[in-house]
Amino acid sequence: MSDAQAGDGSLVVGRHAVEEALRDDDVPERIWVADDPAGRAWWSRGPAALAQAAHVPVLFVPRAALDRMAAGQAAHQGVIARAAAIPLREPEELMDAEPGALLVLVDGVEDPRNLGAIIRSASGAGATGVLLPERRVAGLGPACAKASAGALRRMPLARVKSVQRALEGLSRAGIWTVGLAAGERPVWETDLRRPTCLVIGGEERGLSRLARERCDDLAGIPMSSSLESLNASVAASIALFEAVRQRGLAPAGR
Amino acid sequence: MSDAQAGDGSLVVGRHAVEEALRDDDVPERIWVADDPAGRAWWSRGPAALAQAAHVPVLFVPRAALDRMAAGQAAHQGVIARAAAIPLREPEELMDAEPGALLVLVDGVEDPRNLGAIIRSASGAGATGVLLPERRVAGLGPACAKASAGALRRMPLARVKSVQRALEGLSRAGIWTVGLAAGERPVWETDLRRPTCLVIGGEERGLSRLARERCDDLAGIPMSSSLESLNASVAASIALFEAVRQRGLAPAGR
Repeated sequence: MSDAQAGDGSLVVGRHAVEEALRDDDVPERIWVADDPAGRAWWSRGPAALAQAAHVPVLFVPRAALDRMAAGQAAHQGVIARAAAIPLREPEELMDAEPGALLVLVDGVEDPRNLGAIIRSASGAGATGVLLPERRVAGLGPACAKASAGALRRMPLARVKSVQRALEGLSRAGIWTVGLAAGERPVWETDLRRPTCLVIGGEERGLSRLARERCDDLAGIPMSSSLESLNASVAASIALFEAVRQRGLAPAGR
Repeated sequence: MSDAQAGDGSLVVGRHAVEEALRDDDVPERIWVADDPAGRAWWSRGPAALAQAAHVPVLFVPRAALDRMAAGQAAHQGVIARAAAIPLREPEELMDAEPGALLVLVDGVEDPRNLGAIIRSASGAGATGVLLPERRVAGLGPACAKASAGALRRMPLARVKSVQRALEGLSRAGIWTVGLAAGERPVWETDLRRPTCLVIGGEERGLSRLARERCDDLAGIPMSSSLESLNASVAASIALFEAVRQRGLAPAGR
């Protein structure tokens, strides 16, 4: 199963992939198992208990039905699941400049574990949404779901056409955009109390040139030396909780 | 190769493990390749170029010599490498209550990627050392090295017998110990400007009962709801950079 497709209601094909999805708490909506001795024997050796614990409906069907479902995909080995779709919102729903608005726009985060960790931290910080451009962003598959520790299903998420469109929409909505970039003014000297969207660059290249030019402000996390850098999800998390700190100290109180 | 052994000058045995070590920048000190057609053919298909780029000395030796070296370990498939030892300090060297002292003591961080990410952030924050108990802590192998993005070789590291011994040593040295634990007073309301050691609990169980009882102070990162939690390396990083922030604002200046 391609990571980019998962989480969108796509098919999870084969023993290893289905078992991993069950173990990762990326619980499928439904599972089909080949109704023959080989299929039933494998199923009862472990996956059955996991599926039962997670209340996943299971159907035993002729192997030929699985052949048809998996047409053109990997060998199904007698089992296919349908991944539960992650509910996505409309970007406009999330781009609301309410007083507590705190968004994250990811710009080139291609490691699904990093994306999951960012969503986990955003959820922990009480962020109001995460915006996911269609390109150069990891999928919401099992690796992302696992790293998110369940936050993938709690955090409001929206797909946006591109980083540029997202920045335009945020600007129209009156949300201040702050790009995280190495060497910029410390994030704790940047006012994050107004409705804000943090823009997080990718693992290798950091913030894109476009985001760097179009953000309202840039902020950095000071490093002890030029040799040093931070993991993208760590940098995002430090900025998110700096916003929590600032907002907690604000007159509105905690 | 067991992750717990790697990084200590131990042997990396087999094609996949050696190639992965080369690709992960966990460059071995030396590589031995079977001096026969199978050994040389595999070597020249890719690993040779990686080893050359990384200036790793390579010796071609009779396959029987590899059999002896790998005795009792996994099948060597014609290649063995010696992992470069990560230099470790004596704990007393790091437990120095100099004005800028900022240490990390890990307490049950068993995921090597999390440990590597903690070491990366500690190095980025200019921490003065990371203390690694002998038990219930991930090894310094390739997964840790990769997540550390090179910091594993820059950050002063020391093995300590146990969390208890480390806390005793820190106390004797006059270093304030702050355990990170859910639900405690926000870390940004805790004074981190004195010589401090942050104590970081593991992924599943958090801070151990012993550390919770013996630390001088406990601090938390406030979550938006009780459902939420943070990755261990993210929590450590937020606390580390909160110390950077506080120290930057202190009269001593940045």
